[in-house]
Amino acid sequence: MVYKHVALIGLGLIASSIALAIKRGKLTTKVTATSRSKSTRSKASDLGICNVVSTLQEAVKDADLIILCVPVGAMEEVFQEIAPFLKSGSTLTDVGSVKASIVDQIMPNLPKDVHFIPGHPIAGTEHSGPEAGLANLFDERWCILTPSNDTKPEILKNLISFWENLGARVDTMEPEHHDLVLAVTSHAPHLIAFTMVGVANDLENVTKSEIINYSAAGFRDFTRIAASDPTMWRDVFLRNKEASLKVLDRFTEELFLLRRAIIKEDGDYLHEYFSRTRAIRRRIIDAGQDTGEPDFGRGKT
Amino acid sequence: MVYKHVALIGLGLIASSIALAIKRGKLTTKVTATSRSKSTRSKASDLGICNVVSTLQEAVKDADLIILCVPVGAMEEVFQEIAPFLKSGSTLTDVGSVKASIVDQIMPNLPKDVHFIPGHPIAGTEHSGPEAGLANLFDERWCILTPSNDTKPEILKNLISFWENLGARVDTMEPEHHDLVLAVTSHAPHLIAFTMVGVANDLENVTKSEIINYSAAGFRDFTRIAASDPTMWRDVFLRNKEASLKVLDRFTEELFLLRRAIIKEDGDYLHEYFSRTRAIRRRIIDAGQDTGEPDFGRGKT
Repeated sequence: MVYKHVALIGLGLIASSIALAIKRGKLTTKVTATSRSKSTRSKASDLGICNVVSTLQEAVKDADLIILCVPVGAMEEVFQEIAPFLKSGSTLTDVGSVKASIVDQIMPNLPKDVHFIPGHPIAGTEHSGPEAGLANLFDERWCILTPSNDTKPEILKNLISFWENLGARVDTMEPEHHDLVLAVTSHAPHLIAFTMVGVANDLENVTKSEIINYSAAGFRDFTRIAASDPTMWRDVFLRNKEASLKVLDRFTEELFLLRRAIIKEDGDYLHEYFSRTRAIRRRIIDAGQDTGEPDFGRGKT
Repeated sequence: MVYKHVALIGLGLIASSIALAIKRGKLTTKVTATSRSKSTRSKASDLGICNVVSTLQEAVKDADLIILCVPVGAMEEVFQEIAPFLKSGSTLTDVGSVKASIVDQIMPNLPKDVHFIPGHPIAGTEHSGPEAGLANLFDERWCILTPSNDTKPEILKNLISFWENLGARVDTMEPEHHDLVLAVTSHAPHLIAFTMVGVANDLENVTKSEIINYSAAGFRDFTRIAASDPTMWRDVFLRNKEASLKVLDRFTEELFLLRRAIIKEDGDYLHEYFSRTRAIRRRIIDAGQDTGEPDFGRGKT
């Protein structure tokens, strides 16, 4: 047992999945968790996923590992509130989708005897809240940790073991590099999906029923991503501004070139471009990061 | 039995799925099919999905319903080749993703005693070829037919029954309206997905392994669509140029506004935008056009 007592701050999809994966693996003797919202606390309590308490202080008291599972924009405030109550020698981590801004907010105010290692499990679904938690959410998914040069090896080793016990594979990198990688693999795709769904919602001369009935032609895939939590995603773009904009600018440039090829009826350009993108899906499937079943193996209804 | 003998021109995903659905429902006494490629013909023959023949003439001879299942760019040439051999009173249809350009190509040269009703089943997967065929591909999916004002009601009624027997629901509309609706629900999303995958493939300072390992954060969804057949998609954009460009321009405008909101750190704009897009997914699921399972219910590996 790496940690005897784990505290979860927040009770959304990720926190509840951590609680369920801890339960599945019998990984700790105690899990305490809390959420600002009374209704979320009572839902989580009814689901019996862990010991739900009312205050941040109660949740973190005596915890060996404290995991911040709140939207990126709420991390700093929550941290300020719990900082005085963190146990000496405890490890603090988080699950935020942006890393550099969190390091900037927390490191200067970290109690001297608390270890902070930022983290980000690359896992999730389009659903939110404690009822969306899945014990197997992290199985075969990667978790990125961004330790500093000062992080003690044994402290890092423990957190790596913890995530591995939850089912994940663990990688480490610099916070800034994480933010660029995730801008490509997550943030830009989400903004693009939100945009495409927004456009479809609003297009004159096409009815909502038409959009919905004929969505199986590609559009419906975008709606899954665009159904993700609005608060989480607002915070991601506000906190990972530079890298998101960089990737979006590259995207806009490439789209411009493809648009020009359509205008000029340059079939060779289009065919060559469309031929290059097939291989990467094969590699994602081979790497165990997606199913090779047609249409994600999705059910018909 | 609506048609005794159905001829399939082309032996890709759609044609082989039609053949398998016909077999499942025992819908005709005879299905003949052909493909330009010898290796495709021999694959289809080995799979035993229907009676595979070597020439277009053999395939369409005496057929009551002829379905063109080739890429949009190949329709006209194939039509010119089969036109002299079409049986008097037979019905010709197609499954192309673009409709107005096909009408323009075929109508002026249609033999007087042959009925032409363009069609488009809104179904598919990212896989290609006869081995990708699925007997249930059309179940609960929509098929759009674009009859002209001159189409005889009983001829249309038969084709509608045929598609319903394959498992589909049928809608009719003008070819130009079809092309606009599909530009939103299919063509623009595909171009955007191709673009995003192209950008990720090429981004400096991010390795291929990083893209692949962390793709579960959203990017992998785009790779499925971007794994679709390059020839089919080249043809779609060349033949549905105006509507595709119209939707892409709207997309670019909206993306510009969201980009500006990120630069100005306008969290309210972002939150409001992201909140509007959730409802449409709920309606798609309620309409039976997607699964409500988290992550499309995809398998973990």
